[in-house]
Amino acid sequence: MSDHSDITIQASARTVLSVDAMGGDKGPAPVVAGISRSAAKNPDIRFILHGPRAELERLVARRKPLAGRVEIRDAEGVVTMDAKPSHVMRHGKGTSMWSAVESVRNGEATVAVSCGNTGALMALSMVRLRKLPGVNRPAIACLWPSRSETGFNVMLDVGADIRADADDLLQYALMGASYARNGLDLKTPRIGLLNVGTEEHKGRAELKAAHDLIANAAARNQFDFVGFVEGGDIPSDKVDVIVTDGFTGNVALKTAEGTAKLISDLLRKAFKFSPLSRIAALLAYTSMRRFSKRIDPRRVNGGVFLGLNGTVVKSHGSADATGVSAAVKLAFQLAQSGFSERLAARVASAAMSGQDAPKELREGDKKT
Amino acid sequence: MSDHSDITIQASARTVLSVDAMGGDKGPAPVVAGISRSAAKNPDIRFILHGPRAELERLVARRKPLAGRVEIRDAEGVVTMDAKPSHVMRHGKGTSMWSAVESVRNGEATVAVSCGNTGALMALSMVRLRKLPGVNRPAIACLWPSRSETGFNVMLDVGADIRADADDLLQYALMGASYARNGLDLKTPRIGLLNVGTEEHKGRAELKAAHDLIANAAARNQFDFVGFVEGGDIPSDKVDVIVTDGFTGNVALKTAEGTAKLISDLLRKAFKFSPLSRIAALLAYTSMRRFSKRIDPRRVNGGVFLGLNGTVVKSHGSADATGVSAAVKLAFQLAQSGFSERLAARVASAAMSGQDAPKELREGDKKT
Repeated sequence: MSDHSDITIQASARTVLSVDAMGGDKGPAPVVAGISRSAAKNPDIRFILHGPRAELERLVARRKPLAGRVEIRDAEGVVTMDAKPSHVMRHGKGTSMWSAVESVRNGEATVAVSCGNTGALMALSMVRLRKLPGVNRPAIACLWPSRSETGFNVMLDVGADIRADADDLLQYALMGASYARNGLDLKTPRIGLLNVGTEEHKGRAELKAAHDLIANAAARNQFDFVGFVEGGDIPSDKVDVIVTDGFTGNVALKTAEGTAKLISDLLRKAFKFSPLSRIAALLAYTSMRRFSKRIDPRRVNGGVFLGLNGTVVKSHGSADATGVSAAVKLAFQLAQSGFSERLAARVASAAMSGQDAPKELREGDKKT
Repeated sequence: MSDHSDITIQASARTVLSVDAMGGDKGPAPVVAGISRSAAKNPDIRFILHGPRAELERLVARRKPLAGRVEIRDAEGVVTMDAKPSHVMRHGKGTSMWSAVESVRNGEATVAVSCGNTGALMALSMVRLRKLPGVNRPAIACLWPSRSETGFNVMLDVGADIRADADDLLQYALMGASYARNGLDLKTPRIGLLNVGTEEHKGRAELKAAHDLIANAAARNQFDFVGFVEGGDIPSDKVDVIVTDGFTGNVALKTAEGTAKLISDLLRKAFKFSPLSRIAALLAYTSMRRFSKRIDPRRVNGGVFLGLNGTVVKSHGSADATGVSAAVKLAFQLAQSGFSERLAARVASAAMSGQDAPKELREGDKKT
């Protein structure tokens, strides 16, 4: 082989994504349509696709952009949406989800993408990829449409775990800062801690403790800490990363999605109400499309599992081709930026300086 | 006096509202404008208005609908937005907020309304009005725009307390059911318990315990229990009352408000984007107004404090005349329906059957 082909192989090896074709609400068709859309836009992307071979071969054969860029890995089992995570952890071998995570574990792919059962995917990812040294609870981070310059804020945890103590919240701040640096290209992300008021005396005990831990870690880890923020600040431009426990984060995320959906439906009704408003809808078509695109949850599809040896992107269970393609785009970005390695290095160094160093240093000495 | 005038006095005595003119972000002007708007619409309403006499007299004199319908109670002190609740509890005598609560305590008025500091208002209400027998933690309930037939769901607690155990959540269910019955006129309200999934094995331990307690109390207390609901279900038509702890509820409420605000701003921008979209905005004016009215947070202004001997309505600190008028309308409705007495009777009877009865009964015997 010539030097040239070696480089090509290296480059493509860097951007192989492992995709679970099964487990979404709509089966493998939108997944294959989604990766095809990504492949058409991005020549540097390759896929390992996991699921029942015959069915996947038929779906892939229909999509020209996928020719020669997909390797199918046969897996007959499917993790259903109502499967218990603990059961999948013990008996999940042979499912497409297990197989998809395995390709990241053995280094064939850099990032895994799945539309399946969130709890099962997190459980499988934890046992197969294992937690990063220094991380107690992994977290799921999402991109939240906001008034910030990038158009998005990072919010975590949105549902990996229902609990988080002060040390976990500090870890989330470090992981969230790293994600914002690599995913949103922010040099010094601004971190906020979600609470029911912005005064320092408010809120639960673990939040007050986390407030001090995160404040002390800020300078050493190149982020700004803006202190407590409230629910209304999540889409604001005064913060880039919002840190909270997975129970609160999950409720907030689903509440925001439900609110956006209700407003969209009411808006659609308003436009259909009278002949005049129907004409208005036609005239405003382009502007409204831009508006819809901005708040379309499919375009920000993809929760990222942080704190594991390897990156996993969880797509919505109901994702269509647009949603899957958004998740694939995010996975590609993270793969290219070497996010996994950077995050691991960041957390390890924070754990070193934070937990192994003498107490004076942990309390905020900025010389380290 | 004739019989006729006696009746008039009785009727007006039934619908006296006690209004704190101070403590809102914009001072007393929008409060007086708001009660004037309500007075113009509703001839059965009277006010006791608390604040600095000279200033209030001047403001009231300018409003014709208020002539002869407002009694001013002089109170020079103002509870500021950043006052600590514990401080106000000890030193708040002489403030307009204290005075407003006092009028409910001594029976001059049925319901108090304030735009002031939520924490301080709750603290004052707790020490002056005292908790209902059988209630451990009072709660704040709000009306949430929804797909339900009434246009609203009830959500509680949205911020009275940052903690709630299983028994508190059961109390919230009972109080929320009572509020939905009196405020939304629903005979058999459907209650849901907020969680991160709808499967029964999910969520925090206190939620699983609360799930069973509420399920067992349903038949005896004339509500339906729909089980766990998620954030996306809050504005849905599958539930009328959503029960949660005050931390989660407050974050969810503010997140929804922030989301609605972001979407409105983006929508406004979309309509201003091009000459064509400006024309569209004109054509869609009436439909858009109806739409805006539906999601306008000012129209659903008013959190109700539940679980006290007397009803207190907390209006938004930033409420304008429209917002204050909405809070006054809600207060009037609750005063007219005899809500305080009904709620007290309901909670007392539930406490009797729930806590004093033998264990078999508590566990769900439906014969009581």
